[in-house]
Amino acid sequence: MALRGPLFRLLRIQLSHTSQQSRAQSVAVLGAPFSRGQKRRGVEHGPKVIRDAGLIERLSGLDYSVHDFGDLNFHHLEKDEPYMDVKFPRNVGAANKMLSGAVSRAVGAGHTLVINLLYDAQIFKELFSFYSLCPDLCLIWVDAHADVNTPMTSPSGNLHGQPVAFMLKELQDKMPDIPGFSWMKPCLSSSDLVYIGLRDVDPGEHHILKNLGIQYFTMRDIDRLGIQRVMEVTFDHLLARKQRPIHLSFDIDAFDPSLAPATGTPVNGGLTYREGIYITEEIHNTGLLSAMDLVEVNPVLGATQEAVEATASLAVDVIASSLGQTREGAHPSIDEIPPAKEDTEQLRL
Amino acid sequence: MALRGPLFRLLRIQLSHTSQQSRAQSVAVLGAPFSRGQKRRGVEHGPKVIRDAGLIERLSGLDYSVHDFGDLNFHHLEKDEPYMDVKFPRNVGAANKMLSGAVSRAVGAGHTLVINLLYDAQIFKELFSFYSLCPDLCLIWVDAHADVNTPMTSPSGNLHGQPVAFMLKELQDKMPDIPGFSWMKPCLSSSDLVYIGLRDVDPGEHHILKNLGIQYFTMRDIDRLGIQRVMEVTFDHLLARKQRPIHLSFDIDAFDPSLAPATGTPVNGGLTYREGIYITEEIHNTGLLSAMDLVEVNPVLGATQEAVEATASLAVDVIASSLGQTREGAHPSIDEIPPAKEDTEQLRL
Amino acid sequence: MALRGPLFRLLRIQLSHTSQQSRAQSVAVLGAPFSRGQKRRGVEHGPKVIRDAGLIERLSGLDYSVHDFGDLNFHHLEKDEPYMDVKFPRNVGAANKMLSGAVSRAVGAGHTLVINLLYDAQIFKELFSFYSLCPDLCLIWVDAHADVNTPMTSPSGNLHGQPVAFMLKELQDKMPDIPGFSWMKPCLSSSDLVYIGLRDVDPGEHHILKNLGIQYFTMRDIDRLGIQRVMEVTFDHLLARKQRPIHLSFDIDAFDPSLAPATGTPVNGGLTYREGIYITEEIHNTGLLSAMDLVEVNPVLGATQEAVEATASLAVDVIASSLGQTREGAHPSIDEIPPAKEDTEQLRL
Repeated sequence: MALRGPLFRLLRIQLSHTSQQSRAQSVAVLGAPFSRGQKRRGVEHGPKVIRDAGLIERLSGLDYSVHDFGDLNFHHLEKDEPYMDVKFPRNVGAANKMLSGAVSRAVGAGHTLVINLLYDAQIFKELFSFYSLCPDLCLIWVDAHADVNTPMTSPSGNLHGQPVAFMLKELQDKMPDIPGFSWMKPCLSSSDLVYIGLRDVDPGEHHILKNLGIQYFTMRDIDRLGIQRVMEVTFDHLLARKQRPIHLSFDIDAFDPSLAPATGTPVNGGLTYREGIYITEEIHNTGLLSAMDLVEVNPVLGATQEAVEATASLAVDVIASSLGQTREGAHPSIDEIPPAKEDTEQLRL
Repeated sequence: MALRGPLFRLLRIQLSHTSQQSRAQSVAVLGAPFSRGQKRRGVEHGPKVIRDAGLIERLSGLDYSVHDFGDLNFHHLEKDEPYMDVKFPRNVGAANKMLSGAVSRAVGAGHTLVINLLYDAQIFKELFSFYSLCPDLCLIWVDAHADVNTPMTSPSGNLHGQPVAFMLKELQDKMPDIPGFSWMKPCLSSSDLVYIGLRDVDPGEHHILKNLGIQYFTMRDIDRLGIQRVMEVTFDHLLARKQRPIHLSFDIDAFDPSLAPATGTPVNGGLTYREGIYITEEIHNTGLLSAMDLVEVNPVLGATQEAVEATASLAVDVIASSLGQTREGAHPSIDEIPPAKEDTEQLRL
Repeated sequence: MALRGPLFRLLRIQLSHTSQQSRAQSVAVLGAPFSRGQKRRGVEHGPKVIRDAGLIERLSGLDYSVHDFGDLNFHHLEKDEPYMDVKFPRNVGAANKMLSGAVSRAVGAGHTLVINLLYDAQIFKELFSFYSLCPDLCLIWVDAHADVNTPMTSPSGNLHGQPVAFMLKELQDKMPDIPGFSWMKPCLSSSDLVYIGLRDVDPGEHHILKNLGIQYFTMRDIDRLGIQRVMEVTFDHLLARKQRPIHLSFDIDAFDPSLAPATGTPVNGGLTYREGIYITEEIHNTGLLSAMDLVEVNPVLGATQEAVEATASLAVDVIASSLGQTREGAHPSIDEIPPAKEDTEQLRL
């Protein structure tokens, strides 16, 4: 798809000119390689493998102005006893606060779209700061898991299964005061959220989803309705009353493990490549995407180098498709079929 | 999905209590490792690899009372000349009679659901005895193959391609008197049967399907209608006039060979994981499943250990989903979101 | 599916007799192993691996009279300077002229269906001659790529991305006079063509598709509409006003790379096995298929022997399904279920 050949030097110039006017979008990319909450070494390379798979080049090719802020540098707090069953509360809390600040600064600097590469969903996304900057934001959460356990319902005590519970206003009185999290305020109503791709939901989570009336689509719902209808209902639910910015949180484990093997909690029966791309194409087509997380690419969990590269390449496809890469080849800057005669002359200039 | 953590010891007790009251289901598991009709050694380990993949634990986790009757021990009859082209008629007949008796005893002992693990569909399922105990039973046959050849139409002479012909009342006058099968009586009308997943149908079988007006869905029909509509029509066909018990016979080769490689007669273009799970979820949701066979997992035909384990694990998923494991995480025993305060107190008790 | 056993010797004779009367189809198979436009050696074996995967036997089993004309023997023209960015114009032009003549001779000899095995879509299909013989022909192009660049829009200058542009009447004034191509005349109107499976379309190509109002279905459209609806609209578009012969051009890279790895320009997110087979079943069912290309099976690009064999076997399935192989097992020659009694007597004759 790279533009080369005789006419393309010219087209390229016109095109860059046009697209910078029409899109005027500036994308900030932030890596958050948080690894101290895990035993395994090497997971801090998550954002790196996504960059190595060509993320920045792909986004630049879509005519965005891309600013890569590099990776955050988290400090490890030695003294961090569990609270109830919750592990590493102060480290997770501090890492989130740091990420939150970085997102705020990126938004403050005028970037209209922020992309986070998080190796670990224990990092609670940049939502907390972003929501306060943009109170209208709604959230599409594409994931095999609901990540909505409270510290009370969590079977494992891992905070990476709990971020949505911390965000939901309706669960505020169910959440204990975890050390390290006092700076956070719930920012999301249960009606502002849609899940897509669930297939490993804990009983306590299922009860919360039902009890709060959250709109969610399990893989069974996708089997039943088809991905096209799922996206229609998603947008009806979130955008019918008013157009508002979308935050997309995409866990790579939403895909089937055959496509995204290098991840921490794979579950059989996931999204196909085409369903994942369809979801992101539809979100792009709303023109409302404002922030995106891509989480849980974990290179140390790939059995082979091919497995790691396939997973990272898939992550790049998902991000590029969310930002406008199409399967149809649309390109607004071309407005006529180049004639044979003129081109030949052009060549001789 | 395992329940652990602070509150879960308590929840677990309530839950076991509740579910035993509401479900009151006792499941019998029977293995039938029939291998003497084959040249290859090792196939007798079919039921074993399914058990090794965690079947009993998974079903126990669904709050059934599970009784594993172990494997039947078949006796080999030395003198067993072919009858026409039909191979090993007396061995297959005797093995079926033995299995039939075992199923009768399990039902007689009060088990409300019987699961058979059959390495080889040459074993004619437990249907013959079960149908006489429960004359209302209908049959859903999920398979790449129709297994409805008569000894006259069979291209191979293998009995594993003929069990449905032996069961159908409408074919009684087309069946010769095979030695070893005199104890069997046809028990099924052609309107009591639906096929799902066919894609390798012999011409003689196709003629029987059409001629008897049997309801069947080939992979082409699934492509055309979608699996959701296929299940609707299946239930309309079998259950519209009255609710009645369902027997599910699930051949692992219904799945695509990329998912279930360790099987004897793989055919390209099979069910996806999600379609297979959707079929079994829907059958579970009727509340009418009474018996199930899982057939043709053959560990010696897997090219690698991974291939065998993937096939066996898929078999466990199919059985667990048929018995109520959900992708949505539903759990009837949880009736409120645990509050933060009380839980903390709970911990200190 | 091979017919054997007691009754089948007789059935087979009846069946051959019947089908030759009803179908009366004679199929010509032509290989076009054009490789001199490429640097890599070995690609000339493309048609060979498809034949080795059993093509001729499979088609014969479908009761066609099959005539394998073998492979064309192309002569390399040493002096072949690029024209603009277009590479090897005289070699590609001459190879196409040769293929075109061979197709004309096959049609002239009374073959009602012509199948071309082309290793490389740089070979411009046999369309040019065939269209002049049969001016009503319409074209279904199943491919990841639109192959409709003009020499002016082509990013690469490779002619294999341009054949459709040479065929379209509406693009005639956009095409320069390429040496080696003076014998070709555009033969196709943009309304006579439907694309299925596109997912890597160059911006210039997209503009041509839109500008000429060509009916096309990208993978996104298949995701949105389903393959069943795509085929309905395809036939509505091409056949609603009148029944006419269909030319099917099937690039193996329309399939997902996981299914067809041994090809030159794989693109993720392609057709499933079942979608590909559904397309060809539907085309067969129109009764209007008159010519077919199967292109871009490239054995040297398979990473393993298994990859090459899987790709070649898939090619055979696509061709066989286009010519009437069904997943349902239909066979017109069987008109009754063989009775038990008569067969036994038959055996003793």
